Amino acid sequence: MIQALDLARQAGPEADPNPRVGCVLVASDGTVIGQGHTQQVGGPHAEVMALRDAAARGNSVAGATAWVTLEPCSHHGRTGPCCDALVAAGVGRVVAAMADPNPLVAGQGFERLRAAGVEVEVGPGADDARELNLGFFSRMVRKTPWVRLKVAASLDGKTGLRNGVSQWITSEPARADGHAWRARASAVLTGVGTVIEDDPRLDVRLVQTTRQPRVVVVDSQLQTPPGAKLFMPGRPVWIYAAVQDERKAAALEARGATVTCLPNAQGKVDLVAMLKDLARREVNELHVESGHKLNGSLLREGLVDELLVYLAPKLIGDGLDIASGIHAGGPLTELAGALPLEFRNFEQIGPDLRIVARIAGRDTF
Amino acid sequence: MIQALDLARQAGPEADPNPRVGCVLVASDGTVIGQGHTQQVGGPHAEVMALRDAAARGNSVAGATAWVTLEPCSHHGRTGPCCDALVAAGVGRVVAAMADPNPLVAGQGFERLRAAGVEVEVGPGADDARELNLGFFSRMVRKTPWVRLKVAASLDGKTGLRNGVSQWITSEPARADGHAWRARASAVLTGVGTVIEDDPRLDVRLVQTTRQPRVVVVDSQLQTPPGAKLFMPGRPVWIYAAVQDERKAAALEARGATVTCLPNAQGKVDLVAMLKDLARREVNELHVESGHKLNGSLLREGLVDELLVYLAPKLIGDGLDIASGIHAGGPLTELAGALPLEFRNFEQIGPDLRIVARIAGRDTF
Repeated sequence: MIQALDLARQAGPEADPNPRVGCVLVASDGTVIGQGHTQQVGGPHAEVMALRDAAARGNSVAGATAWVTLEPCSHHGRTGPCCDALVAAGVGRVVAAMADPNPLVAGQGFERLRAAGVEVEVGPGADDARELNLGFFSRMVRKTPWVRLKVAASLDGKTGLRNGVSQWITSEPARADGHAWRARASAVLTGVGTVIEDDPRLDVRLVQTTRQPRVVVVDSQLQTPPGAKLFMPGRPVWIYAAVQDERKAAALEARGATVTCLPNAQGKVDLVAMLKDLARREVNELHVESGHKLNGSLLREGLVDELLVYLAPKLIGDGLDIASGIHAGGPLTELAGALPLEFRNFEQIGPDLRIVARIAGRDTF
Repeated sequence: MIQALDLARQAGPEADPNPRVGCVLVASDGTVIGQGHTQQVGGPHAEVMALRDAAARGNSVAGATAWVTLEPCSHHGRTGPCCDALVAAGVGRVVAAMADPNPLVAGQGFERLRAAGVEVEVGPGADDARELNLGFFSRMVRKTPWVRLKVAASLDGKTGLRNGVSQWITSEPARADGHAWRARASAVLTGVGTVIEDDPRLDVRLVQTTRQPRVVVVDSQLQTPPGAKLFMPGRPVWIYAAVQDERKAAALEARGATVTCLPNAQGKVDLVAMLKDLARREVNELHVESGHKLNGSLLREGLVDELLVYLAPKLIGDGLDIASGIHAGGPLTELAGALPLEFRNFEQIGPDLRIVARIAGRDTF
């Protein structure tokens, strides 16, 4: 299963929004006779790749065991059902790390295999398999993306100067690392304030990638300049607004944007509805790079799952905070009200420190 | 030398203000025949301890090599000169990690050894030996203590709530770790604001220690309450003021305080003069636990050498900053003006993260 998980990790961002899955076919004598991982959307799944690999090597898979990191699919989606392919090839046993949370699969793959006389075992490597596809699981189970908030700050927690200057607090290696996290996300979200002030491209350019994530802009008043750099040929930009403005919307749509009006009672964008809409658009992981206000709103509404924080070895002192207004009743009066996190890991990236922290309890869906 | 450095690390805080030194005596056949480290102030130094150890084991040290982490002393201070003891014992060779920066020694130990026919080599392990006694080196070379600023903050860099509440942001293990750093310091410094608001004891109680560090309070207007918890029987408290007030000073001195008036032109305590005074009082490492204003002043005046930061896995949002007013001209207008640090190491302490960061270039004296 460790080998299957390693294969799953090799599936690139082009597999998105499909889960990243690995499959290893093992003969009864223990030798590996075929392996594969999920290909680009619409391409073969891991099981089919492994069967093809075995065939290409001239290996028979009759009676073999298939180790897969996720339940083989049972439905006709973009491809044919993998469990049928496994049965047809004569696989004798399937060991899956976990069941597919996709309601179109949800145990039916296992049933179908068992009905065909294939032995099925579920469980080994479940934690790793789930972690590998947390965004996919979130979309399937919670119907909302896994939201990762990226922050670059000085050691004293400042993301920029009072005058708004924020480029660049962290180093080139840290920015490249940040692009690697952008690359694995289905979409990158920002606020219109950041678009106007920094005019970011929000694309992946400091690391290799096989596809660019979509861009999402929270823009209540439709103030995104049609000349903003984030508009690129062929790139979907999804703008969520709180006002209807045909003229402005048309100008933005002419640039490749899709404008959706989702106002809440306060005349701002309904962030919960926006996330649900993004899940419908098959966004698994949503990578947020925004300013302290939108960061604060997302945190206050309980919509952030994970923080990706780069701390630079410097002190800014008086400057912009990571997030403001994160507590509904205004500034805290008791420490017990602080938003609890769990540190997942730390790593030095160039001169900077990367911290991955999860909002406590957010990954228990 | 690695073994001698390990011994030096075993010297407890009771050696302060002496440097922590280790000594290993090795016979010509390579066997260790004696070892020792610095004892409490006024007690034997590492070399004498090692010679005694060899004698107790019945080993002759004639012709042996003494590996020491610092130049053997040549002066009659609280104890007799170690180099005389080495010569008298017939040691044939001395390998020292580095020369003693103490102007009373400063190469004279080596000269004396060489004059007595002892072979001398200097250099192996110099970096580690210096790091081990950075406070001592700072006091000897710069005539000012090594200043370490301790901060406990949330991941978003907040040390407390707007209403001043700051106990406790970090966990019990992190607080115990903080006490271990207090224990190794010669003195703990705070500001009168912290004394009035938090009434801290500033002693070492969450870890074992053989002596309590002194307490230093920056208190321009002599507002320290004589009933403050930091006054303890037999414990020196040094209060630095900017005003002369015989009545207030007498009340504090009755509690064990020594009051020193060191005003600057702005009517505040002259922090540079205070640090020089603390060095004269044999403070090697000064451990600062204060609020954002005094933190900011110390940083602005370039008096901080190292940051000891505990980050708790929580978000506070709107709250108190780590340090304010750290730049002389007010809030920065260019990122290039940020105070540069170097991360030394990271460690998870309980649920929290400890970061040791040095102000760039501060350890090159």
